This record gives sequence, structure tokens and C-alpha cells, in this order.
Amino acid sequence: MKYNAEVKISLKKGMLNPEAATIQRALALLDYKVENTDTIEIIKFSIEGEDEETAHDNVDEMCQRLLCNPVIHDYEITITPENG
Amino acid sequence: MKYNAEVKISLKKGMLNPEAATIQRALALLDYKVENTDTIEIIKFSIEGEDEETAHDNVDEMCQRLLCNPVIHDYEITITPENG
Repeated sequence: MKYNAEVKISLKKGMLNPEAATIQRALALLDYKVENTDTIEIIKFSIEGEDEETAHDNVDEMCQRLLCNPVIHDYEITITPENG
Repeated sequence: MKYNAEVKISLKKGMLNPEAATIQRALALLDYKVENTDTIEIIKFSIEGEDEETAHDNVDEMCQRLLCNPVIHDYEITITPENG
């Protein structure tokens, strides 16, 4: 069965996020005052799997081997059936 | 009042996404077969505003002036009250 996988990758609490800091500074230069800027990346793909759990385990393995750096990133996996 | 703003930025349909293509190829090299890979970026921040609509309009302006490139990006804004 086909599943849609979504991996939400964010920096761990306490990690400096230079991209977010730059965005916030650039917005301030345009006179927009915003706070607590943060960025999150989402990677989406479809994957073949026997059931939802197998698909989830597979994606978790991908995260640990390639998609995320477990030292600095937190990640969250969402699996949904493709036709549902 | 304070609001949390979330801007979800994706490439328009039909735009090439080299990052997603690279991820898919790298996963294939590790023997993970995935399809339709796509990436989305989320920018989150908190913003001061009179009401939800004003905050939304403000964030929309930021998107058009700085955060997004309307030629290649689609964006989606979500505003939620900070203490709600």
C-alpha cells in the first residue's frame, strides 16, 4: 500500500538558528517588529509499505541515516494513507 | 494583542525542486524507494496586532516584500492567538 510521509525537521531547543535570525533582522529593517522567529523544514514523499507502522519505521530509519542530524535536529513523522 | 504567525512556503506546481530531487536520489542510493518528493519551508514568528485580520494583512505584506518570491512560490499564512 502507498502512504504519504511527512517529516517535520526543526532545530533542537537552544540551537542557534542563523536563518531565522537573519529573517527577523531583515523584517526589522523594513519596520516589521516580530519576535521568536523560527524556521522548520518539511520533506514530503510517498512510500510503499505493508502497513502504517512499517512505513513509519522505514521513514524513521531514513531520518536517522540521511534526512536529519540527530545531534542538532528534532523530527516528527506523519504517515497517512495515500487514498484516504 | 499577540499572535503566532506561520508562513508555509512551497514552490509553485511545475517548478523544479533540486533539493527534493537530490533527497530522492540520495534515498535511492541507500535503497529507499520513494516518490513525489517535495520540500516545504515554514517560517514562524510572533507578531503584535490589533486583531487577527490586521495581523494577517501585515504578514501577507511581509511575504510579498521579503519572505516569498511570488513568481516561484506559493504561500499560506496561519494566524493564531498566542494565548489560545
